[in-house]
Amino acid sequence: MTALETQGLAAKRAARVLAVAGAAEKNAALEAIAQALCLHQDAILAENQKDLDAARAGGMKQSLLDRLALSPQRIAGIVEGVRQVAALPDPVGEVTRMTRRPNGLIIGKRRVPLGVIGIIYEARPNVTVDAAALCLKSGNAVILRGGKEAFRSNQAFVSVMRSALETAGLPGDCVALVEDTSRKSANELMGLTGYLDVLIPRGGAGLIRAVVQNAKVPVIETGVGVCHVYVDAEADLDMGADIIYNAKTSRPSVCNAAECLLVHEAVAEAFLPKAKALLDEKHVELRGCPRTAEILGPCVVPAAAEDWDTEYGDYILAVRVVKDADEAIAFINDHGSGHSEAIVTANYFTAQKFLDEVDAAAVYVNASTRFTDGFEFGLGAEIGISTQKMHARGPMGLEELTSSKYIVYGTGQIRT
Amino acid sequence: MTALETQGLAAKRAARVLAVAGAAEKNAALEAIAQALCLHQDAILAENQKDLDAARAGGMKQSLLDRLALSPQRIAGIVEGVRQVAALPDPVGEVTRMTRRPNGLIIGKRRVPLGVIGIIYEARPNVTVDAAALCLKSGNAVILRGGKEAFRSNQAFVSVMRSALETAGLPGDCVALVEDTSRKSANELMGLTGYLDVLIPRGGAGLIRAVVQNAKVPVIETGVGVCHVYVDAEADLDMGADIIYNAKTSRPSVCNAAECLLVHEAVAEAFLPKAKALLDEKHVELRGCPRTAEILGPCVVPAAAEDWDTEYGDYILAVRVVKDADEAIAFINDHGSGHSEAIVTANYFTAQKFLDEVDAAAVYVNASTRFTDGFEFGLGAEIGISTQKMHARGPMGLEELTSSKYIVYGTGQIRT
Repeated sequence: MTALETQGLAAKRAARVLAVAGAAEKNAALEAIAQALCLHQDAILAENQKDLDAARAGGMKQSLLDRLALSPQRIAGIVEGVRQVAALPDPVGEVTRMTRRPNGLIIGKRRVPLGVIGIIYEARPNVTVDAAALCLKSGNAVILRGGKEAFRSNQAFVSVMRSALETAGLPGDCVALVEDTSRKSANELMGLTGYLDVLIPRGGAGLIRAVVQNAKVPVIETGVGVCHVYVDAEADLDMGADIIYNAKTSRPSVCNAAECLLVHEAVAEAFLPKAKALLDEKHVELRGCPRTAEILGPCVVPAAAEDWDTEYGDYILAVRVVKDADEAIAFINDHGSGHSEAIVTANYFTAQKFLDEVDAAAVYVNASTRFTDGFEFGLGAEIGISTQKMHARGPMGLEELTSSKYIVYGTGQIRT
Repeated sequence: MTALETQGLAAKRAARVLAVAGAAEKNAALEAIAQALCLHQDAILAENQKDLDAARAGGMKQSLLDRLALSPQRIAGIVEGVRQVAALPDPVGEVTRMTRRPNGLIIGKRRVPLGVIGIIYEARPNVTVDAAALCLKSGNAVILRGGKEAFRSNQAFVSVMRSALETAGLPGDCVALVEDTSRKSANELMGLTGYLDVLIPRGGAGLIRAVVQNAKVPVIETGVGVCHVYVDAEADLDMGADIIYNAKTSRPSVCNAAECLLVHEAVAEAFLPKAKALLDEKHVELRGCPRTAEILGPCVVPAAAEDWDTEYGDYILAVRVVKDADEAIAFINDHGSGHSEAIVTANYFTAQKFLDEVDAAAVYVNASTRFTDGFEFGLGAEIGISTQKMHARGPMGLEELTSSKYIVYGTGQIRT
């Protein structure tokens, strides 16, 4: 048995205990974790400092160092997050669709935890606690495999959480950290069939692609967002400009930010200068189709073929003039990543058509794509945003971390 | 572009049309298919005859020839199945959890088709029509990859269905058959990311394992059933004997048949001879633990380690005496395939404990495991029985062939 299989087996056993723990027990464990994180803050910060020193010595750039760094304020935020998860309703145990069949069998569908969830993620150590809290609350054991840059911080967090779990009477093995941060361990985790019920990658497009391509365990694909805003012929143009400005610039690095603006040809001349005036405030680079360049002039970089499929994550926006809503919808379905898509229009029928025909996790009428997340959608929290159609689509909250089992009450029925 | 990618793209385009088709259109297409299958029955039977001749020449054994053979009666049954699917409620379009958020956004979760479903299956040609009907009704395009033994029959079915779809005004590409039946095409289908939203293998354990191991597209694992019946100390022993007899012998080849009997030590001496008397009627071979052999004598074949993990699919039953319900539950969780598990007991607390702690798609009290299927569970039909926890667990009906999308109605909201 490999080290990872040993961890997998321990997690599987812990998951069985956790699966039948009540909400009060799980909440008490989360509170114990919150308190322990406060109590051991200095030790955690000391380990984080070692990660930071090593990263700085290795030449990590400042923006990544910022994501890696913990502080008393950040730990307070993490602790607050754990308490918020504790305050959410427990999704486990609800029985839906209970029916009595003609043969007298009473059959119900009960919500149960998935079992053991694997999370592969990159540098940010806060994910370690956030993800563990969501998994615990939904009754799942979790095997965390973070990036090597944050290993000491992650280890400190996990060690504190495991002790707190045991103090609260639950198995410490409900939360485990993969000790080996090499590519080999990532590959081994992707192949841990029989132990992992689902693997969720959280990180950049490269990581997610690698997991989707290589995993033998079930995967939930998250987070790649090539999102569009389509400004229709009948749009309120000021609303359209506000929405694309917000969707592009309020936080360009996140997956629900817009990467491409589509404009109906009938309003392109009126709308594009208006949008540009706002986007210029943030020095957004525009990569446009020939018609866009005609209207806005030489400031527009001619878009190459790959611009229509790129998640910039930056102050860059692809811009394309389209003939009508049908062309916009077809373009989005061909080039979008199935994340978040918006139309700006005052026309009722065009709005409904867009909602019906665009194939994405979240489809908006007259609102910014930036709202696609668990908090904004009222799920309380999220472990990621699924861009696949199986199991969960869009923001994944606690319910999306559960499965079901049929429970069947009989009185001796046999099948004839 | 490979031939399969071309089919994938065509299916994807067809799926977009099908996704917005109403129930009336889809039902009309299913009725057109039913009528066309009747009309072209002779042509289908002629192609099936060629498959049968080739299979017989290749030395296919009789039981497999029986599964491959069509007849007017079998086609009538298939047609009846299509009409039953047409009569089921359309799962697409239902909006659940629609709420108004504090910022005025109205957010609903709408049930939508998965998109393009791949099905890999083995010899039985009826699967071709059954699976296509379920996919069509749930708004999904389907790419079918059947076994080479049934290729001509499958081709005849698919050709008839495609014509009927076009007559009914829907794209023929909603149903496609992979023309190449080599292992290469199966592998290519498993890697058809970007085209297939989900791949469902239907067949033996070897096929399912190959798909789970190799697929890069999302997979729903189906059908492997190592199911147990546990007869508790407080069981009605006659009921227990009837249930294990039914679970083992009513149809041993199917996945919801029992493979292992667990008996509480306190009733083993009274129960085992009673069960054996019934099982002897069907000449069921018993492979037992030492205590079972002690009680039943030399007719018991000593169980080897692998017997506790084997899906016999035959008149063979593993038998084990256990100390108590806890040992039974732990044994089931370690050795079961997560399909269907049953307890026979009159004790309320033991029954609840078993329902809570056994981790399987369907957990039964005082009933045969043989009830786990879509018809018996009231889903109307099924495309398979999922033994994984992601997306769907247990019998998969029309609802399990759908995904969701969030629809968001705004009035100009931007995120601050």
